Amino acid sequence: MPKHLITFYPGAKKISVDEGENLLQAAMEAGIHINASCGGSGTCGKCRVHLLNGITDSPKHPKLTPLEYDQGDRLACLTTIRGDIDIEIPIESQVDKSVLEIKGDREAHQYLLSPQDIYQLVQDWEVDPPVFKKSVQLAPPTLKDNVSDLTRLTNALERQHDIRGISPDFRVIMKLSRILRESEWNVTATLVLTRKGYKLINVEPGDATHQNYSIVLDIGTTTVSGQILDLNSCVVVACPDGQCDGSTLFALAEASDYNAQISYGEDVITRIVYSQRHGGLKKLQEVVVSTINKIIQELLEMSRIDRSLISHMVIAGNTTMTQILLGLDPKYIREVPYVPTANFIPPVRAVHLGINVDDHVHAYIFPMVASYVGGDIVAGILGSGIFQREPLTLYMDIGTNGEIVLGNKDWLASVSCSAGPAFEGAGIKFGMRATRGAIEEVNINHRTYEPMILTIGRARPIGICGSGLIDTVAALLGTGMIDPKGKFRRDLRTGRVRMGPDGYEYVLAKKEETAIHEDIALTEIDIENLIRTKAAIYAGCKVLLDSVGLSFNDLERMIIAGGFGRHLDLEKAILIGLLPEIDIDKFIFVGNGSLLGTRLLSFSKNLLKEAERIALMMTNLELSNHPAFMNEFVAAMFLPHTDSSAFPLVTERLQNDQCKLQN
Amino acid sequence: MPKHLITFYPGAKKISVDEGENLLQAAMEAGIHINASCGGSGTCGKCRVHLLNGITDSPKHPKLTPLEYDQGDRLACLTTIRGDIDIEIPIESQVDKSVLEIKGDREAHQYLLSPQDIYQLVQDWEVDPPVFKKSVQLAPPTLKDNVSDLTRLTNALERQHDIRGISPDFRVIMKLSRILRESEWNVTATLVLTRKGYKLINVEPGDATHQNYSIVLDIGTTTVSGQILDLNSCVVVACPDGQCDGSTLFALAEASDYNAQISYGEDVITRIVYSQRHGGLKKLQEVVVSTINKIIQELLEMSRIDRSLISHMVIAGNTTMTQILLGLDPKYIREVPYVPTANFIPPVRAVHLGINVDDHVHAYIFPMVASYVGGDIVAGILGSGIFQREPLTLYMDIGTNGEIVLGNKDWLASVSCSAGPAFEGAGIKFGMRATRGAIEEVNINHRTYEPMILTIGRARPIGICGSGLIDTVAALLGTGMIDPKGKFRRDLRTGRVRMGPDGYEYVLAKKEETAIHEDIALTEIDIENLIRTKAAIYAGCKVLLDSVGLSFNDLERMIIAGGFGRHLDLEKAILIGLLPEIDIDKFIFVGNGSLLGTRLLSFSKNLLKEAERIALMMTNLELSNHPAFMNEFVAAMFLPHTDSSAFPLVTERLQNDQCKLQN
Repeated sequence: MPKHLITFYPGAKKISVDEGENLLQAAMEAGIHINASCGGSGTCGKCRVHLLNGITDSPKHPKLTPLEYDQGDRLACLTTIRGDIDIEIPIESQVDKSVLEIKGDREAHQYLLSPQDIYQLVQDWEVDPPVFKKSVQLAPPTLKDNVSDLTRLTNALERQHDIRGISPDFRVIMKLSRILRESEWNVTATLVLTRKGYKLINVEPGDATHQNYSIVLDIGTTTVSGQILDLNSCVVVACPDGQCDGSTLFALAEASDYNAQISYGEDVITRIVYSQRHGGLKKLQEVVVSTINKIIQELLEMSRIDRSLISHMVIAGNTTMTQILLGLDPKYIREVPYVPTANFIPPVRAVHLGINVDDHVHAYIFPMVASYVGGDIVAGILGSGIFQREPLTLYMDIGTNGEIVLGNKDWLASVSCSAGPAFEGAGIKFGMRATRGAIEEVNINHRTYEPMILTIGRARPIGICGSGLIDTVAALLGTGMIDPKGKFRRDLRTGRVRMGPDGYEYVLAKKEETAIHEDIALTEIDIENLIRTKAAIYAGCKVLLDSVGLSFNDLERMIIAGGFGRHLDLEKAILIGLLPEIDIDKFIFVGNGSLLGTRLLSFSKNLLKEAERIALMMTNLELSNHPAFMNEFVAAMFLPHTDSSAFPLVTERLQNDQCKLQN
Repeated sequence: MPKHLITFYPGAKKISVDEGENLLQAAMEAGIHINASCGGSGTCGKCRVHLLNGITDSPKHPKLTPLEYDQGDRLACLTTIRGDIDIEIPIESQVDKSVLEIKGDREAHQYLLSPQDIYQLVQDWEVDPPVFKKSVQLAPPTLKDNVSDLTRLTNALERQHDIRGISPDFRVIMKLSRILRESEWNVTATLVLTRKGYKLINVEPGDATHQNYSIVLDIGTTTVSGQILDLNSCVVVACPDGQCDGSTLFALAEASDYNAQISYGEDVITRIVYSQRHGGLKKLQEVVVSTINKIIQELLEMSRIDRSLISHMVIAGNTTMTQILLGLDPKYIREVPYVPTANFIPPVRAVHLGINVDDHVHAYIFPMVASYVGGDIVAGILGSGIFQREPLTLYMDIGTNGEIVLGNKDWLASVSCSAGPAFEGAGIKFGMRATRGAIEEVNINHRTYEPMILTIGRARPIGICGSGLIDTVAALLGTGMIDPKGKFRRDLRTGRVRMGPDGYEYVLAKKEETAIHEDIALTEIDIENLIRTKAAIYAGCKVLLDSVGLSFNDLERMIIAGGFGRHLDLEKAILIGLLPEIDIDKFIFVGNGSLLGTRLLSFSKNLLKEAERIALMMTNLELSNHPAFMNEFVAAMFLPHTDSSAFPLVTERLQNDQCKLQN
C-alpha cells in the first residue's frame, strides 16, 4: 500500500500514512490535536483545516462556503489522503503535545498485529478442524456383502479417508438407513474429534463437504461476542508448509451484545446471588441463551449462511458464566474456598442448552482453571502462544474481571481481580461497548480544553467505550484538569467542565452533536470507577509477579486482551497507571483473546490437547484473602500510582506539563 | 444329597433318585408310565401306585379311602421319596417302554448342567462387573487445594481405586457439588466401562457400594425374559483363583412374559410389515417397552429391591426386536439383501427408550451379526464358550426363529431359519410359554393311549409348552397314533383321539382336570406346525454343515438353547427329528442362552470385548435364497425324516414298536 507524507503546520510535524487514510484519524494517531466533537461524523464542522499543498479526496460541506472550499479549507474528518500534503491547523486547535518518551520504536513496532501475525503467536498447528465433513461413495449392499449400514459407512470412512475408531451418535444411526438409500449410497459424514476419538455426528445426502461452518462464542459477564467461521476457507487456499495464511481464518461475520443477565446483576457475584433465588439459575441460563440465540441469528443473517450448515460450536467463558450456561449451580464459586464444579466439561449438544442450532451440533466448552480463571483465559493463552515460548510473558485480559496470567512454556500462574465492568461500558454514566457510535479515541486541547473525539464508524456519538474512557481520563490528567485522585480542578475556565446531576463532569459531546440528543459527559464518579478498575488490575499484576519473585522489568512480553475498541492507546494506558511503564515494544494487543482461542481451536484439532494442557499446567493464586493484594490495590488508587518511582517517565512528563501550564 | 433306590414292579426296574424327589416325576424321568392327567396337581387321582416296601412322605387324599391308604395305596404325584422303596404300578398304567439305544452314558452325562458347570463353559473371566460402585472419602477443599469438585472426585477415584481416564456424564456434573457437600465429602461413584474407557454415571451420598444391581433382558419375538442380578454377590463369596462359584451368579429373580408386540404379528416379518404403517414403529416400540417395564416391576417386587438400586441393564435380542426397541426402522431387514442398520450400538440411556429405571442407567445392547442373527445369539455364543474352544460345536437356539451357529475358537458360521413360534407356545392351539401350569412332560401308554402328564409347578394344566409339545408328538409317533406325516390313525380305539373343531386331535387333559375348564388337546394342525418348525431347524443345521463340508458326525458338541421348560427330552427330540441322531453325551442344554450371555457380561467386564469379537468373527450364510435349503426343508417334513439312514436307531425302534403293536 502506498505511503504518503503529511506535514502539519505550524511546526512542520511530519507523519507517514497509508493511502486512503482519514486525515482526522491520522492526526489523532500522530498526537496532533484538531478540535472535533461529533466523533468524525461530519456534523460539528470544528475540525476545519487548511490544505496548503497537494491533493486530497474531500467533499464540499455546508459548514464550508464555496469560497472557503476553493481557498483550501477542508473538514479533516471527511478528508481522505491520496498523496503527500501540507496541512495548516487553525490556531484554536494547535497544541504542542508532549509525549511519553517510552523506549521503543513506535513506527516499527506492530502493537496491533496483523491477522497473519496474530495467528502465528501460537505454533505447531495446521488447518485441520476438529469437526469435519467427508464425502463417501458406498457400494450398494448385495447378498454377498450385506453388512450393516453403519458398518458399510464406517468401513468406507476408514478405507477412503483413513478414519478409524469411529463412535456413532445414536441420532445418526436413527436416520442412517433412510439417508443411505435416498441418496443412492452417496453421503457426507460429519465427524468430531473428542478426547475419546472420532464421533460420527451427522450424515447428509450427497456431497455436502463444501459447506461446513462453526460458531465461536465468548460468554462474558457483560458482553457476549460471537463469530461465524467457514471451516473450509483454508481448503481453497494454499497452506505452504502446513502453515495457513492467517487472513483466511477471518470470521465471516462478528456480532456481540450485552449479556442479558445484566438485568440480574452487574458482576458475577451478584449473578451468583441471583442464581440462589427460586428459579434464579434457570432464569439466568435462559436469558444468556436468548442473547446467544440473538447473536447466532445476527451472524447467520450477516453471513447469509443457513443454520443447518453449522456443524460445530466452540464456547469460552469465565467459570461463572460457563456454569450458568450449563445449568450448573455456581453457588460454591462465591463461597470460600471458591470451588468450581468442574473444569473439564464433556462436549454437550448445543440444543440441550437451548441454543438454536441443529440437533447434531456439539459445543466444545473451553476447559477452565479455577472459579475465577475460566475458559476465556485458557482460550486467550492458547491463542497467544505463551505456553509454547521461552520468554516470560504477562497476559492481561480486561473484561468485567481482570484476569492475569504469567509464565512461559514451562509454567503458568494466574490471578483474577474483580475489576468491574468499566472498560465494557457498564458502571460508566455514558459507557457503552465498542460498537458503532462509541467514542473510542479522545484528545483534549491543553489550552482550550476542547476535545478531539473519534467514534467507531465515524457515527454521531452515542457513548464512550473502554479505549475512549482511557483516552479521556489520560487527557484530563495530562491537561491537569483532574488531580492524581481523579478530582476536577475547580478553577478551570471552560464550559466543558461543569457541575452535573452526579457531581463534576467533562462534556465530551454536546447534545446537538450526539445521536442521543443529550450531552455526553464523563463524571467524577466514572473516573473513580475507572481508577478502581485500573488499580485492581495493576495490583493483580504486581502481586502475581511478586509471588514468583519477579518484577515488571523481568517481563519480555506483555499481551493485552479485552473488548476495547481497536484503539487502545498504550501510552495513555500507561499514563493513568493501568499498564506498567515498560518498553512499549513489549506490548502486543490481541483484541478479544477468548475469541482468538475459540477460532484457532475451531480450525485445528491438534489444539484440543493443548487447551487441556494449558488448563492443567496453570496454577491459580487466590487474591481474595491475599494480604498483599489490598495494600497494592490501595497504593494503585492514584493516577498513575502512589509510588512515582514505578512511573518515572509519566511523573516527569506530568511535572513538565504542569510547569508549562503555570508559565 | 442322599440317593435312594426305587424298584418298580412288575419288571423290577430300578432307578436311583435324590432324597426329596417326587415319585411321579422320578417315574417320568425313568421312562416308566403311570397314568396322570392333571399334571401332578393331585386332582385326577389316576396316578395311584402301591407301596410294597419302605417309607415315603405321602399325604392322605379323598381319592384314596383310609383302608386303601393303610394298605399302601398312594398318589404318585403327591409322594416324596425319603428312602429306598418298592413300588407296584397298577395294570392300567404298566408299559414296557422301549428306549432309543443311543450311545452315551445317560446316568453319567450331565445334559442339564449345574450352574457351576454352565458358568464354566466360557473361560478366562472373573467377577468384575462393567458397572461398579466405588466409595470415596474426599478431603474437603481449602484455599490451598481448591480444585474443581469433579477433579477432586476423579483424583480420589484414581488414587484410592486406581481408575484412570474417567469421562463424567453431564448429569453427574449437574448434581455433583450439592451431593459432595450434603454427604460431607463421602460419596459413592458408579462407573461403567465402555469401549471408550470409564464413564462416571452416578454419584450418591455415603457408602452405597453394597447395593448394586443389574437387570438383564432377552427380547424375543414371542417372549421377553428378564432377570435381576446382585452384582455384589460374588464380592462376599470367596472366588478361588479368580474363578467364581457359578451358584453365586444366580439371578435374584426371573420373570418373563409374552412380548406385547404379538398382537401386531406373530413373527418378525409381520412385525416389520406393521412397522411400516403410519405410527407403526412407534407403537411396536412402545408396546415392547411396556412388556419390559412390566417385567422389571415384577423382578423388583419378587426381589424386593428398590428401583433406584439398579445400575445397569444388559439387553440381547434378535436384530428386528433390537432395532424396534431402539426405534430404528427395521424396513431393510426384510428386503433383499437383508441389511440391518447397525450391528454395534453405542450404550444408550435406558430412560431414553422409555424403560422405567433411574435416569443414569445405561443399557448395553449386545452386538449383532446380521439381519437374522442378533444379539441373543452372540450372547448365547459368549455364554457357551464355543468361540474359545477347540472342539467343533453346533449351537442351536430355538425361539420363534431358529438360529444355528457352527464353529470353534478359530471360526464361527451362522444361519437363521424361520422356525415359527411353536416351541414358545404360539401357533399351537393350547400352546403356552414354559410357566406354571404348562404341560412340560408327557408320556402315552402304548396300549391304553392314556397320558401321563406333568405340569410346571404341579399345577392344574393350562396349556402345553415347548417340551410338552415335543414329548406329546414323540409319544404319538412312538405309540403309532400318528404316521410319519403327523396324521392320526383313524382306527384308534380310544376316546382321547377325536374329531374336534379343527380336525383330529388328542386330548391331553379333560376339562374337569384343567385350570381352564376346557379340554386341552393337540390338533393335527398343531402337529403340522411342529413338523414345519423342526424341519426348518434340522434343514438349517444340515445346510450350514454342508456349506463347510462337514456332517453331523463331525460334531464334538451340540449346545441347545431355548425357552423350553427345564425338561426337554433329548431322545424325544431326536425321535421326531428335531435333533440329529448323534451320541447323546455330545448334547448340552444351557436354557435361555441369551440370558446366560447377558448375565455373564453383567458380571465380567473383560467379556465386553469378547462379545464384540464374536460378532465380528461370525460369518452369516443367508438361507432365504439358498437353493439347498428348500430341498433339505422338504426332506425333513417327515417324522423323523425322509432319509431314514440319517436316523437308523429311531427307524429301528419305530419298526420294532410297530411290530409289537401288531402282535
